[in-house]
Amino acid sequence: MSEASEYFVGIDLGGTKIAAGVFQNGKVLQKHRLETDAERGSGPVIADLVELVRQISRDHGGVLGGVGIGVPGQIETKTGHVAFAPNLHWKDVPLGRELREGLGCSIAVTNDVRAITYGEWTYGAGRGVDDLVCVFVGTGIGGGILVNGELLEGSGGSAGEVGHLTIVAGGRKCTCPGKGCWEAYAGGWGIGARTQEAVAADPTAGAMILEKAYVDNDEVSAKHLSQAFHAGDALAKKLVEETALFLGAGITSLVNILNPQRVILGGGVIDGIPELMDLTKAQVRANALDAANKVLEIVPAALGSDAGIAGSAALAANRKG
Amino acid sequence: MSEASEYFVGIDLGGTKIAAGVFQNGKVLQKHRLETDAERGSGPVIADLVELVRQISRDHGGVLGGVGIGVPGQIETKTGHVAFAPNLHWKDVPLGRELREGLGCSIAVTNDVRAITYGEWTYGAGRGVDDLVCVFVGTGIGGGILVNGELLEGSGGSAGEVGHLTIVAGGRKCTCPGKGCWEAYAGGWGIGARTQEAVAADPTAGAMILEKAYVDNDEVSAKHLSQAFHAGDALAKKLVEETALFLGAGITSLVNILNPQRVILGGGVIDGIPELMDLTKAQVRANALDAANKVLEIVPAALGSDAGIAGSAALAANRKG
Repeated sequence: MSEASEYFVGIDLGGTKIAAGVFQNGKVLQKHRLETDAERGSGPVIADLVELVRQISRDHGGVLGGVGIGVPGQIETKTGHVAFAPNLHWKDVPLGRELREGLGCSIAVTNDVRAITYGEWTYGAGRGVDDLVCVFVGTGIGGGILVNGELLEGSGGSAGEVGHLTIVAGGRKCTCPGKGCWEAYAGGWGIGARTQEAVAADPTAGAMILEKAYVDNDEVSAKHLSQAFHAGDALAKKLVEETALFLGAGITSLVNILNPQRVILGGGVIDGIPELMDLTKAQVRANALDAANKVLEIVPAALGSDAGIAGSAALAANRKG
Repeated sequence: MSEASEYFVGIDLGGTKIAAGVFQNGKVLQKHRLETDAERGSGPVIADLVELVRQISRDHGGVLGGVGIGVPGQIETKTGHVAFAPNLHWKDVPLGRELREGLGCSIAVTNDVRAITYGEWTYGAGRGVDDLVCVFVGTGIGGGILVNGELLEGSGGSAGEVGHLTIVAGGRKCTCPGKGCWEAYAGGWGIGARTQEAVAADPTAGAMILEKAYVDNDEVSAKHLSQAFHAGDALAKKLVEETALFLGAGITSLVNILNPQRVILGGGVIDGIPELMDLTKAQVRANALDAANKVLEIVPAALGSDAGIAGSAALAANRKG
């Protein structure tokens, strides 16, 4: 655990932006933001990260206890090795080792959504329980699983890939090798594809979705579905209800096998169609096992965009030593 | 942990039979078997269990370190309370408390399939890894999940209900409140129902399945499918391949979210159609995330019918104190 004079740096490394926060005793002292120079490869990005933390160290009187960093990709958490991070164009980057060598302090590397999960648990909608699942529905579906107060990492560091639960065996092709994955139905890109297909199948019913979208059907997205839904369109309503059925199917799987006290649901799709929260809850209540429903709350995410840096810093503080 | 002179009793409480084993230093010394007098309610069954362990204590010179018991139902593992055990007709039975009062020793109560999982981990196909999932395909699909060498119990004790993963959103009605559950497609009862529907839909193609079964179509089961499959029937082959697709879908979900080193696959349906092992492996290889496949082995269960008593005794030894 951290001493009173120690501070920790939490970093959220995105494909276009790097966000960082300086935390002491669980309070954020300062926030930083810079662009990710991903085009130049991993070397310059890591050099930027090292320079950022060195700058922070020069500015702060206390002792740097460690750095936590969330990366959008597959991480071997024991070593901090980044196996694959498509948004950064990284493959096999020894991020943990290089940061450790560059900074000489304890480094905790984890997947970005697992870092957010840890942030929600430490400071947000997950406080007070030790068994929870976070589900973030954005373009894809990301998540994190906490068991007995420990982030589930799996034997190779890839546990928590909830977007790739199979919810329709042999179903829609995913961007991963699989078929029928949760995000292919209920992630933003899957919702967009389903909406386009529904509009193409019945252009009359799909007229309002297209009218609201001002784009050709092959560019219709979850955002356009949201606009038509909030304008009272019947096809949009049907598609949103189907989306809740699909969201409910994935959450039902998660709660039946993990039996958490809480599921935290967030992300751009839920923010855009907040009605999905209650519709999805109703699906889970109707379909999950009584034993799973009995202990379960489904709540919205609480922290917004700071969850990643807060969670990374908390991980660094708790993993140290 | 156990001392050398201590012994532990592992019990597998079934709806019709009680099996018990006496274990010392991980070796079985003696096995017992009696009928479960489930008709008379929980009181007489618990009295039989207490009498059985007392008899064992009188026969053995060492010290009884504790009793572990696997129960086919939903267990609150911290207290040993049995919330629901349909095969025993039990609802809200304080088994842990009553055994503790009757025997005056440490008692570990868990779900029967979780006990088998712990047995396979301690003595069987799960030795040497700390992250594994067991899947037993019998009439239903039961399972157990081990994370960092700890049995995953969940916040209410019902974690590991893998048979109720949703693999077809909005699909076949399950015996639980849900729809589209794994066991409704790939458990013995689900396979039987799918076979009956396929035979009814095309009686010509289904002729060999019916001929091998010697029963009316509404009694056709997974066993009859196995007989026709092994006789080379085309419809049976198609149904077995579909079953592998469904089995693969559930295992893909499990490995994508849990990232275990090993999946142990067993149970009557796999024993009856051993070809399902390789067919299912191929489905998982084709559909799971690369990161999940990279660390994964899928292996057959090793212990057979003694896994439950061995696992219960091992749990009692490891949880003691």
